[in-house]
Amino acid sequence: MTQISMHGASAPVFARMLDNMLAWLDAARAHAEAKKFSTDVYLTLRLAPDMLPFTKQIQIASDAAKGCVARLAGVELPRYEDNEATLDELAERIRKTRDFVRSVPAAAFDGSEAREISIPRRVGEPLKFDGLSYLNHFALPNFYFHATTTYALLRHAGVPLGKGDYLGA
Amino acid sequence: MTQISMHGASAPVFARMLDNMLAWLDAARAHAEAKKFSTDVYLTLRLAPDMLPFTKQIQIASDAAKGCVARLAGVELPRYEDNEATLDELAERIRKTRDFVRSVPAAAFDGSEAREISIPRRVGEPLKFDGLSYLNHFALPNFYFHATTTYALLRHAGVPLGKGDYLGA
Repeated sequence: MTQISMHGASAPVFARMLDNMLAWLDAARAHAEAKKFSTDVYLTLRLAPDMLPFTKQIQIASDAAKGCVARLAGVELPRYEDNEATLDELAERIRKTRDFVRSVPAAAFDGSEAREISIPRRVGEPLKFDGLSYLNHFALPNFYFHATTTYALLRHAGVPLGKGDYLGA
Repeated sequence: MTQISMHGASAPVFARMLDNMLAWLDAARAHAEAKKFSTDVYLTLRLAPDMLPFTKQIQIASDAAKGCVARLAGVELPRYEDNEATLDELAERIRKTRDFVRSVPAAAFDGSEAREISIPRRVGEPLKFDGLSYLNHFALPNFYFHATTTYALLRHAGVPLGKGDYLGA
């Protein structure tokens, strides 16, 4: 069996995409300045009336990244207050999240492919996974969902971004 | 080092999300029937004028999945003609892609974390990666980008889908 690490497939992946997201917010700030609108306009954008708005997409992308790293590594999950009210505060949230996922030592992920992971839900029994299924079939797709939706909202709002900005350097 | 497999982190991840995409297309078909519009309407939807339309999002998601599996496993990359002109043909493309990624034996991925991967680009030198970076920082985010954009276009068009449909059973 080819061997790769649970750490390598999670923390640096999140860290890199979070860095990309910071660059998207920089582009969003520049676009708002050029077009003379407040960056607050971004915060409530939605792709559909029953989808979550921009602010929430970033908060949940952050939660997906820090939740995955904390659960796999068995370290305390940092709780944030979800009270970001400006684009700059959302950028700060992304930076905090990136710094957290980078701070956890790779060795803490050892054995996490078999660790039992339990995800509380608003309604019903918690979701249960082994660490590997959790990473591949829940945490990564969930993170990418919210990162991509953030990107899509900015593109929909006219921010000049492309696939290179999505994937990062 | 915790040990997981290159196969496990790629082929079954693609296969599951491709199955989810088939369920989204079923929901899209039912929505069009209920609202009495042609499913052709979906094919040209875009989130921004300079983003690729629905049909192309699905074709590229398919390319990302089959390209990753073929390159990592060192098997022939199936070429499709990109001539899908209906929702049903797009569903058939997704099924073909899923069946291909499922058909490649796990053992063929052995050692692929270190395999040199070269991705041709329309302009300039090909992108070069080792297999592990290719999977984690290019193929998976690229695949999720196009899958999520497909989902976002359907949600934008009013198709009743939720996070459970995105992540799958």
